[in-house]
Amino acid sequence: MRVLGVDPGLTRCGVGVVEGVAGRPLAMLGVGVVRTPADAETGQRLVAIEQGIDAWLDEHRPELVAVERVFAQHNVRTVMGTAQASAVAMLCASRRGIPVALHTPSEVKAAITGSGRADKTQVGAMVTRLLRLDAPPKPADAADALALAICHIWRAPALNRLQQAQAAARPSRIPTTASVRKVTR
Amino acid sequence: MRVLGVDPGLTRCGVGVVEGVAGRPLAMLGVGVVRTPADAETGQRLVAIEQGIDAWLDEHRPELVAVERVFAQHNVRTVMGTAQASAVAMLCASRRGIPVALHTPSEVKAAITGSGRADKTQVGAMVTRLLRLDAPPKPADAADALALAICHIWRAPALNRLQQAQAAARPSRIPTTASVRKVTR
Repeated sequence: MRVLGVDPGLTRCGVGVVEGVAGRPLAMLGVGVVRTPADAETGQRLVAIEQGIDAWLDEHRPELVAVERVFAQHNVRTVMGTAQASAVAMLCASRRGIPVALHTPSEVKAAITGSGRADKTQVGAMVTRLLRLDAPPKPADAADALALAICHIWRAPALNRLQQAQAAARPSRIPTTASVRKVTR
Repeated sequence: MRVLGVDPGLTRCGVGVVEGVAGRPLAMLGVGVVRTPADAETGQRLVAIEQGIDAWLDEHRPELVAVERVFAQHNVRTVMGTAQASAVAMLCASRRGIPVALHTPSEVKAAITGSGRADKTQVGAMVTRLLRLDAPPKPADAADALALAICHIWRAPALNRLQQAQAAARPSRIPTTASVRKVTR
């Protein structure tokens, strides 16, 4: 499966495309950062992020977009920008009918490094190794976007089994948006 | 001037259009709520909000969109949905080149009722009076959207004077996006 990972941010929005399946070597198809000027109006910055994400979707046609799940307990100032940028990424994907999956930072770290508390260096080192790159992608937002995509590819089989088990437990109901939601978010 | 006020929310996004200038009677051109189902995926809900806001912009062609400024110190769960919905509203406006102004809830309450701590009933009563309506718009999100539009129309002259004073204080610089930003947000 081909996954676009998005590490949302107003100033730097990391994007990375990974292709592969769990248990097989993965391939990086692209990595980059959508930047917007800090002195521009928020609305203009969101338009720039929309254009950037749309360009990545056009070029790589991912089957799924994995976005970092934003929590409000982070730094008060940055969390609003992160929430706004992630909304634009989700909007761009959903508008095209591409499913969106959300993973928390600790889910991503645990999937990639084995520890939910790993630091940026450790995540960057594992992304470099798993994708057989020459050096860790810079900036860290780009590496985090690739980590999100890898995390989703590796978690997808377990999430699918969970989805099937939930569907089997409700034989009288057809699969609904709500039941799918539990699995893909 | 014609202003679309947006009280952002994922479940209920209040929208209201007010026309007028400070010091003259105001006219309500439309009021409503863009609703999205709570059991839908966030991405789908953001697409529905985008379609709803776009429809209001198409119909009423406002000169400016006034959006409630979201703070992270609110309820942790609802603030993320509010931030996401407000991002979509700002995106829809900015994509069309329509300026966006942000006002805090207390700025709106103070403008409409004279007190930054006024409750919903008081805001609803003043919106009803100022727009010469038969009854307060329901739900409260719709009344809040109208209050945002009124607040912007009334604050606009002072904001414009501030903008001009700031521009005059920097005669060597041409007006930049950043200097405009201080005034309109």
